[in-house]
Amino acid sequence: MIATPQAMHFVEPLALQSGASVRDYTLAYETYGTLNADRSNAVLVCHALNASHHVAGVYEGQDKSEGWWDNMIGPGKPVDTNHFFVIGVNNLGSCFGSTGPMHTHPDTGKVYGADFPVVTVEDWVNTQALLLDRLGIQQLAAVLGGSLGGMQALSWTLQYPDRVRHAVVVASAPNLTAENIAFNEVARRAIVTDPDFHGGHFYQHGVVPQRGLRIARMVGHITYLSDDVMNEKFGRELRDAVVGSATGYKYSTQDVEFQIESYLRYQGDKFSEYFDANTYLLITRALDYFDPARTYGGDLSAAFTRTAAKFLLVSFTTDWRFSPARSREMVQALLDNQRDVSYAEIDAPHGHDAFLLDDARYMNVVRSYFARISGELPACSSNNGVQPALAAHTGGAA
Amino acid sequence: MIATPQAMHFVEPLALQSGASVRDYTLAYETYGTLNADRSNAVLVCHALNASHHVAGVYEGQDKSEGWWDNMIGPGKPVDTNHFFVIGVNNLGSCFGSTGPMHTHPDTGKVYGADFPVVTVEDWVNTQALLLDRLGIQQLAAVLGGSLGGMQALSWTLQYPDRVRHAVVVASAPNLTAENIAFNEVARRAIVTDPDFHGGHFYQHGVVPQRGLRIARMVGHITYLSDDVMNEKFGRELRDAVVGSATGYKYSTQDVEFQIESYLRYQGDKFSEYFDANTYLLITRALDYFDPARTYGGDLSAAFTRTAAKFLLVSFTTDWRFSPARSREMVQALLDNQRDVSYAEIDAPHGHDAFLLDDARYMNVVRSYFARISGELPACSSNNGVQPALAAHTGGAA
Repeated sequence: MIATPQAMHFVEPLALQSGASVRDYTLAYETYGTLNADRSNAVLVCHALNASHHVAGVYEGQDKSEGWWDNMIGPGKPVDTNHFFVIGVNNLGSCFGSTGPMHTHPDTGKVYGADFPVVTVEDWVNTQALLLDRLGIQQLAAVLGGSLGGMQALSWTLQYPDRVRHAVVVASAPNLTAENIAFNEVARRAIVTDPDFHGGHFYQHGVVPQRGLRIARMVGHITYLSDDVMNEKFGRELRDAVVGSATGYKYSTQDVEFQIESYLRYQGDKFSEYFDANTYLLITRALDYFDPARTYGGDLSAAFTRTAAKFLLVSFTTDWRFSPARSREMVQALLDNQRDVSYAEIDAPHGHDAFLLDDARYMNVVRSYFARISGELPACSSNNGVQPALAAHTGGAA
Repeated sequence: MIATPQAMHFVEPLALQSGASVRDYTLAYETYGTLNADRSNAVLVCHALNASHHVAGVYEGQDKSEGWWDNMIGPGKPVDTNHFFVIGVNNLGSCFGSTGPMHTHPDTGKVYGADFPVVTVEDWVNTQALLLDRLGIQQLAAVLGGSLGGMQALSWTLQYPDRVRHAVVVASAPNLTAENIAFNEVARRAIVTDPDFHGGHFYQHGVVPQRGLRIARMVGHITYLSDDVMNEKFGRELRDAVVGSATGYKYSTQDVEFQIESYLRYQGDKFSEYFDANTYLLITRALDYFDPARTYGGDLSAAFTRTAAKFLLVSFTTDWRFSPARSREMVQALLDNQRDVSYAEIDAPHGHDAFLLDDARYMNVVRSYFARISGELPACSSNNGVQPALAAHTGGAA
């Protein structure tokens, strides 16, 4: 499947949750599959910290450019683009195409840097809704996301209950715990205290706070993996064991000794070369701030009375960032409101990262759920390759 | 109880595990209680990352100067200094009195800095044994430690099986997991990549890599606490909620928003003002390197055949740094060797830090165990305040 990045520009100011606003901004997005005649088969995919609108497929002539959820979305895949019109949007404030801190502030003519306004999950959902308006999509068949993407999917059901029929919330949580916030804060302090950060206006200085970004990524990466999978993949293995030594150790405080160190440094280096430091601050803050129960005195069940969608929630047993207990909180709050909710707790060893990986049970759960959604679509709206006559008919009508 | 810091100087070179050596070094230590006539009531207390020889009591005229394990050690306390002669030693390479990176290299006349040799748990145990030689103590009634201190206690039973009758190993592990090493590596990278580190020779530049130390401490601190206790203590509470706002948020990426952020920044700031950066690197490496099963192909039971001591192991249910499972590995390996081992798994909410806190069950387990050790001492050797005649007699004979 060939993907083509697109961009939509918005001139009108958007009021943000913080009270600030942003105008003259662009959203980068991609779509896969075909919108059916009654525009009822749209699926919005929301992304997490380090991802983008490039959800599935590859770019023309770039074999290795698979989208970040290409195992989940595409023709014949669990979210089948033969049935669904799938949309990926890069979040406002990100660094992969949508307007963000690296772009020019229309009021000042200077790069935003640290002046880019704080954006929240709710703000992202509002921008996604504006994009759907432009695409002529009134109601989503489903909104789907993992981790921070799951928070956006959840927020859709609260902000626009009439515009979403199903929400699929994977490896997510109704808010961050103190420990989650603590890890975010370590990452932010590493970035902000890097002398190359220059108060967030490092672009003018021709530098990037790479030291801080490396530390941020290393910390983050530890929380994405389970203890078990780290032990299995790396254990206490040395990178270059000293031959003829009983222990194999080099006895150095600064050299790489263990494979896990080498792996983390590599992840940190790679990340620091492409990810924007201000975006990292914005996205971790959006995570910190998300808390739909907050204005209901912490009562998630009360917050969820607004929902009208049907839900699938998925969690992974070894995910200690957003543990199954956090998903169960959401399931309980939905059940308190007599909502239609399915829940799968997948026994997977990979920690939080499991939501991006192939696991037969996980894939089958999502596949079955989307088959159910597909079954609710008007029969003639399917443009499944197995029914070419119908597809051609629909294509003409769309 | 008044504590008096002492120092012992060693001129002879000490061969280190790395192949390097160190000479003309000093060990800072303290003792509490009285050594009995047959020198059989000595208890060595080993310290973890951020502690010292000042284990118990207060310094003359300094009311708030309690030792780091003052709740555990003292007259009438679980490790009762009316019965035992307790010794605390600051580890070589630390920054609280014993020779370390901030001191002068006798070969060069310059401050060691990053040239201080890598020291291991085994090296520390060797220096502690030399100190005991000087004090005329051939055999310890017990060696006691928590966390990294527990690793030293364990290592005593392997390096000097004849010199230790009991080992009390609290909240410890037979080696670090990949995740443990990963967190250490994040801390080290934060320090080493701080521009003020100057390759470990920052003393000459009149600066300290405080940014790196702050990050290191913040990361460390998260791993010392349980998720539960963080939620209970801080949760999602804001430091200065904005009055009249629905959420109370300031919407800032750099200001302190949540209480947990404020707490972590405070811990980081405080630590960066007194802890030596090179010592941090050395001590985290000593943790990484400790692995007595390594030269036995990873077979802990085989490694433990050398032990002759009796053991008490204690772990805490919410400790995710050194989980109960790690203690159970050691218990199993000791049982495989038919060793006398007691094990207590304490249901405590405080995570790894629980080993330093008051918990009635924990304190009672240690108290009972030391009562047993006390019961094994020659009757006339006790200088218990309850038996003044015997104490006076013993005092004369000692």
